[in-house]
Amino acid sequence: MHKNFKNIDKVVFGRGSFSEMENILAEKRNENNRFFLFVVDNYFKGKDLEKRIPVKPEDIVRFIDVDPHEPTTEQIDNLRDEVLAAKGLPAGVVGIGGGSIMDIAKAVSLMFTNEGSSTLYQGLNLLKKPGIYHLGVPTISGTGAEVSMTAVLTGPVKKLGLKCDWTVFNQVILDSELTASVPVDKWLYAGMDTYIHCIESENGILNNAYSHAYAEQALKLCREIYLGEHAGQTPDNDDKLMVASMMGGLSLTYSEVGVCHALSYGLSKILGDKHCYANCLAFQHLEDYYEEGVKELKKMLATHKVQLPQGLAKNWTDEQIAAMAEVAYNLPHMWNHAIGTDWKEKVSVDTIKELYKRM
Amino acid sequence: MHKNFKNIDKVVFGRGSFSEMENILAEKRNENNRFFLFVVDNYFKGKDLEKRIPVKPEDIVRFIDVDPHEPTTEQIDNLRDEVLAAKGLPAGVVGIGGGSIMDIAKAVSLMFTNEGSSTLYQGLNLLKKPGIYHLGVPTISGTGAEVSMTAVLTGPVKKLGLKCDWTVFNQVILDSELTASVPVDKWLYAGMDTYIHCIESENGILNNAYSHAYAEQALKLCREIYLGEHAGQTPDNDDKLMVASMMGGLSLTYSEVGVCHALSYGLSKILGDKHCYANCLAFQHLEDYYEEGVKELKKMLATHKVQLPQGLAKNWTDEQIAAMAEVAYNLPHMWNHAIGTDWKEKVSVDTIKELYKRM
Repeated sequence: MHKNFKNIDKVVFGRGSFSEMENILAEKRNENNRFFLFVVDNYFKGKDLEKRIPVKPEDIVRFIDVDPHEPTTEQIDNLRDEVLAAKGLPAGVVGIGGGSIMDIAKAVSLMFTNEGSSTLYQGLNLLKKPGIYHLGVPTISGTGAEVSMTAVLTGPVKKLGLKCDWTVFNQVILDSELTASVPVDKWLYAGMDTYIHCIESENGILNNAYSHAYAEQALKLCREIYLGEHAGQTPDNDDKLMVASMMGGLSLTYSEVGVCHALSYGLSKILGDKHCYANCLAFQHLEDYYEEGVKELKKMLATHKVQLPQGLAKNWTDEQIAAMAEVAYNLPHMWNHAIGTDWKEKVSVDTIKELYKRM
Repeated sequence: MHKNFKNIDKVVFGRGSFSEMENILAEKRNENNRFFLFVVDNYFKGKDLEKRIPVKPEDIVRFIDVDPHEPTTEQIDNLRDEVLAAKGLPAGVVGIGGGSIMDIAKAVSLMFTNEGSSTLYQGLNLLKKPGIYHLGVPTISGTGAEVSMTAVLTGPVKKLGLKCDWTVFNQVILDSELTASVPVDKWLYAGMDTYIHCIESENGILNNAYSHAYAEQALKLCREIYLGEHAGQTPDNDDKLMVASMMGGLSLTYSEVGVCHALSYGLSKILGDKHCYANCLAFQHLEDYYEEGVKELKKMLATHKVQLPQGLAKNWTDEQIAAMAEVAYNLPHMWNHAIGTDWKEKVSVDTIKELYKRM
């Protein structure tokens, strides 16, 4: 059985391409109740970009602070219910922000047409109907959420994506000008998400010529951006990271993530750590699985003087560690890819607890 | 103005993935008059692959010999008219073959729903309606036709593609097992098409971080396949060339082809040379424009002991050369990319005639 991978329908790439949005939306405005819902990272409130969003009087704009927590099922359900109550079904959803905003836009577009709580649909191919039109504009590069088939949500029971063909954006606009003002720590953590996607995609039984070609090129770009002669936050590197993020996402779509993402989901679910940061926290201690990758990631962090905290596990209770290990263990597709079909003979909940205790 | 690029809707990749076709088509069989049109390279008639095509009694299978000429507008119109007269509108079209078959499948899917001759629609965004569902299975890697937004047709007046969002395949199946038996000359010429796509995409004013990342990776793959330690027609290299073909196609979709494709269109239109071969004939003499690329392409040909004919121009009449130069000159988007917006100050019909006389 080979994966049948759904692409983004349409892609615009280039500096300044944000300005294409008005024309792109014009063709869609007559759908449903003829208004758009914009979900925008709160960071842009009052910034120049806010004025450039092609909002019409009938549209709804929601600025969302994604710092307190990752997107939750409750947040998506409430947003959907409020918009439906106020104005009915939108023509579409536009997400402008980082990975969390991308996931919120994808998830809410699906939940406008699928009844009940989004908790019902956490998993693979559980959605009953296509969502409404959704357009993504990433303003931080790295998570690959702009290209992926999943919208990851944290629910009361699990952290798991709404994953199906209909999750994928109908349109993305890749304008790296928008990423110029990303703070250095977020620039690094999100870029390391791409780096980790590639290392995990490459190191596992599902890797193939397709996922490998994407990972290899995305890794090359990461090395130029973070370690090269012209390393740093420059316009050229912003362009490159936007492409790398997409290619890293495409690589893992055709392969799979691995040990780091399993542990990272545990950190996010139990402690609320943000995804990219949680990945970095976990990855630095995974030299048993990704030896060269861990060395190189540490070099990238050191080059840009970003230090990850150590000794965190001392402050975690046994219950917290057990709960995190439980979350991580219950992601069999990741372990299967990273370790092999006999992974249960090699990895137990206790193995995972020990990995958390290194942090 | 930034390009808004339509992707293939869905992609399956992997050795043996041809077997997924039956399930994929099953979901579409209830559309229109509930039968599929299969257009298959004549090469596969009587071969094992013929038996593996999931044909139902109601379907129409057409084996097409693509050797005599490139796809023509007349050929597409006739195929459309014959199928409509016999059974009405198909649920979809499946193309199984090389670049010519890919273009036939894409073009006829559009012409089933757009009235009149396909000559009316040669150009950008001239089609009035979406075509019917179309699925492509490349059996030779290199042309990028499996991923491109155009279906190139030779008409009575011009060689030009039906180019729009609807041209792009709804589905491709990338099974490199099917390319194992490609004869060495076709394997090389089609691979060189990818190589030339990348060189042309990179060397021009429309190149950008997106097209560059794809071209760079596709070139790396070409070098491994044709010049590397394990060069040659091996299963690993068949996988790689299938990915390289796609990536080369994506690179030029976001950038543009250049001098070689302009000259090659002249060769095909006036002399009937097949596209990949015509590209090679032209490219070997373009050291003024692509110095390093020409050197490397010659090395690749020499490595695999494929010799291109020399001194062809001696046998061409002045009228033929003038006609070819006219075709090439009238592809301004290619010259604009390769030479710059002031290309008319640097390239005349006479310049182009001189290039043909080198061949």
